[in-house]
Amino acid sequence: MSVALGELAVRFGCELRGDPDVRVESVASLGSAQPGTLSFLANPKLAPQLEQTRASAVVLDARSAERSPVPVLISSNPHALFARIALVLHPEAPLHPGIHPTAVVDPRADIDPTAEIGAHAVIGAGVRIGPRSLVGPASLLGVGVRLGADCRLVARVTLGERVQLGDRVLIHPGAVLGADGFGYAREGVSWLKVPQIGTVRVGDDVEIGANTTIDRGALDETRIGRGTKLDNLIHIGHNCSIGRDVVIAAQTGISGSSAVGDGAILGGQVGMGDHAMVGPGVILGGQAGILPKKKLLGPGIVFWGTPAKPVRQYLKELAMLARLKR
Amino acid sequence: MSVALGELAVRFGCELRGDPDVRVESVASLGSAQPGTLSFLANPKLAPQLEQTRASAVVLDARSAERSPVPVLISSNPHALFARIALVLHPEAPLHPGIHPTAVVDPRADIDPTAEIGAHAVIGAGVRIGPRSLVGPASLLGVGVRLGADCRLVARVTLGERVQLGDRVLIHPGAVLGADGFGYAREGVSWLKVPQIGTVRVGDDVEIGANTTIDRGALDETRIGRGTKLDNLIHIGHNCSIGRDVVIAAQTGISGSSAVGDGAILGGQVGMGDHAMVGPGVILGGQAGILPKKKLLGPGIVFWGTPAKPVRQYLKELAMLARLKR
Amino acid sequence: MSVALGELAVRFGCELRGDPDVRVESVASLGSAQPGTLSFLANPKLAPQLEQTRASAVVLDARSAERSPVPVLISSNPHALFARIALVLHPEAPLHPGIHPTAVVDPRADIDPTAEIGAHAVIGAGVRIGPRSLVGPASLLGVGVRLGADCRLVARVTLGERVQLGDRVLIHPGAVLGADGFGYAREGVSWLKVPQIGTVRVGDDVEIGANTTIDRGALDETRIGRGTKLDNLIHIGHNCSIGRDVVIAAQTGISGSSAVGDGAILGGQVGMGDHAMVGPGVILGGQAGILPKKKLLGPGIVFWGTPAKPVRQYLKELAMLARLKR
Repeated sequence: MSVALGELAVRFGCELRGDPDVRVESVASLGSAQPGTLSFLANPKLAPQLEQTRASAVVLDARSAERSPVPVLISSNPHALFARIALVLHPEAPLHPGIHPTAVVDPRADIDPTAEIGAHAVIGAGVRIGPRSLVGPASLLGVGVRLGADCRLVARVTLGERVQLGDRVLIHPGAVLGADGFGYAREGVSWLKVPQIGTVRVGDDVEIGANTTIDRGALDETRIGRGTKLDNLIHIGHNCSIGRDVVIAAQTGISGSSAVGDGAILGGQVGMGDHAMVGPGVILGGQAGILPKKKLLGPGIVFWGTPAKPVRQYLKELAMLARLKR
Repeated sequence: MSVALGELAVRFGCELRGDPDVRVESVASLGSAQPGTLSFLANPKLAPQLEQTRASAVVLDARSAERSPVPVLISSNPHALFARIALVLHPEAPLHPGIHPTAVVDPRADIDPTAEIGAHAVIGAGVRIGPRSLVGPASLLGVGVRLGADCRLVARVTLGERVQLGDRVLIHPGAVLGADGFGYAREGVSWLKVPQIGTVRVGDDVEIGANTTIDRGALDETRIGRGTKLDNLIHIGHNCSIGRDVVIAAQTGISGSSAVGDGAILGGQVGMGDHAMVGPGVILGGQAGILPKKKLLGPGIVFWGTPAKPVRQYLKELAMLARLKR
Repeated sequence: MSVALGELAVRFGCELRGDPDVRVESVASLGSAQPGTLSFLANPKLAPQLEQTRASAVVLDARSAERSPVPVLISSNPHALFARIALVLHPEAPLHPGIHPTAVVDPRADIDPTAEIGAHAVIGAGVRIGPRSLVGPASLLGVGVRLGADCRLVARVTLGERVQLGDRVLIHPGAVLGADGFGYAREGVSWLKVPQIGTVRVGDDVEIGANTTIDRGALDETRIGRGTKLDNLIHIGHNCSIGRDVVIAAQTGISGSSAVGDGAILGGQVGMGDHAMVGPGVILGGQAGILPKKKLLGPGIVFWGTPAKPVRQYLKELAMLARLKR
């Protein structure tokens, strides 16, 4: 499929500098772009690449537009505009509604006829799946699971008993939602398992990365708020409450009963102890460690180190340490 | 199913303060409890919730019992008593003995008739599965694997060649036991794979979290002792020996040929270098790092930091650093 | 199968000290060796075990050979020689060429007749699989995936759209190659997904551990160079470029658009920020953290700490800190 630049400018309400009849059919990075592709400037450092690009057009902000040798779609948020156009040029593969003959589906499941259930999927009793949702191959849905509309479990996703997903939830292969939380009562030298009977509730527009695990609540729910994005290999313990529009990078671990406020940004390999709290809008540097029960507050404030402290203080301490006399 | 408080008091040998005919049918947290539920005080800070609880009864220690507005089951270990009652009220789903028609089972496997083999499971030659064990959907058992009695592989568990599980071993989805260890011999600039021919042996009453990996021994066995509990996304390298009743929190990694003594407690994201040793009863704070070949000894001693040192020393150093003149 | 020592000495061109007619049929560690086994001295500290070994023969360097009470195969690189002999005595299980009846294979896939496709595998349109490659049980191969010759996907491996593997690539269970990268454009308080349309390209002789994830490039390719070895539970973000003969230990995470040079060695739980670079031959200690955009250069130089610095400097700082007056 190809689209004319003029059509894109109208559709997305942006300014076009150049020939509206030029057509693009795919997106590409500046460096590897060929004629027929649309590119964008991800990073001001790449401006020299812009001047030599073979792309048919680029998405830029107004300031960079003057340096472009090819037609430009101008946006105050070029990354977002590029993302929207990329989705037009590279739409998701179309669904094949229906249930693959190798899937094992409990007769008490309620599956919208517009949904697709892939090969070797296993769907338990009482499961409800909304319109246009995809349950990819080899996914396992426990008893009572609910999916809203337009969800996409890419492949090999495991959802335990009664896990609930909103609409447009996207989950990558190997993710496990709703496994037992890590709860034991001490008895002498040994550990007695505390039954885990809660579940996991995930809001609309959440994305969950490959091999990430989110444990079911011990008694209540573990919650992931609307619009939140989780990278790969993340661990979220039982009873956690993650807010809306939170971004968490890969391999971060959040211990049980902890909370993360709306709009917080957590770097990779961050560790939060149990019953800790990261307030709305807080930013945590990679590998930061938060002690159990600790609260970190302040939108826009960056914390780093273990135990985490405001980044300026942490950097000062590192600098002092490096200056100590030998 | 509902049970009278008097019956629970008799069954678990505990004191009841209140009406023995009151019945409970499920457990709940203090805050979300409804009539008909049994709750408990997880945390003294929640005492105000106790005073307003809608639960029909609570499990408490003697000291807190006086503040309860509802009947109380009294225990010196309320968490453990609560766990035992929870298991009565919320028993595990009953097994459906037999082999699902979509499972692929080698005719040379020996499966107890009381065991359940789920959909799309694959069972290799020479596998032996004990009574009342569950091999959940999409689990893969390599040649010669052995499961004792009452094991539960929840779903999508992978057990490599000859992996041996004791009785009552519980494994969550995505766990991989018995993949090759990470062993290479250097040859010039490249790395020659050293064949990994050992396996993994897991004791009774072990629990293993979602997406955790335990590598097979290079030549001998990787061992997980009886009663040990492993959280999600843990890595245990080849030839490791983990003792009994050890607790390891999520995302901890233990390099090859390391050992952890009985009753040790490891926080999340701990890293142990190869050939290291953590003695019986040692406690490691989250994100602690132990150097290769290092030994940490002393039951009850807490170590923290990278490289890990006794926590008091580590905290002193952090305090000194924060006080340095700017 | 058993082999005479004389035959091994000829085959591998090494010196034999002892009776060439002695036969060995398996390999074992020094401590657990029985008659009929071949062992080797992994670690000079184990020399006392050598003197008491029950092995029929050992692989040693010339210096240790004198202490051996049993026949010796002498090599300047005993670990490598032992690895090669181990592969002779413990060859991989033979392939069963063909497609398991429970596998779901798109008719537009092109599978070499000498390849094996295991139970419950799912193979998409346009997939090409080379000679003698194994697609183990429950593996999922997306549209357009390509495998060279002699690859081994042990079991439950997920390869997303258009992922390309060279020859002799070995991948362990639960690994996910080609899931979407973690890319969003900010729009007000929320995050807009940037379509991820690139893929992953893996060179010859690469090994990838259990539950490791390698994301597809956003627009171009994520690349893993020839001969590189990745342990378990590693995360590699979109657009990364990992060189040749690199070794990366478990649970390390490499953020998007980062690069690792040929022959680098990364310890476990290392974290690299995005757009960072680790030069050829650099060595990173466990849990080291590299800031976004940071470059670490110098073959053979060891870096440690967060943020990572040359290890001698880091150790000096730790020593200074420990000596500060209380």
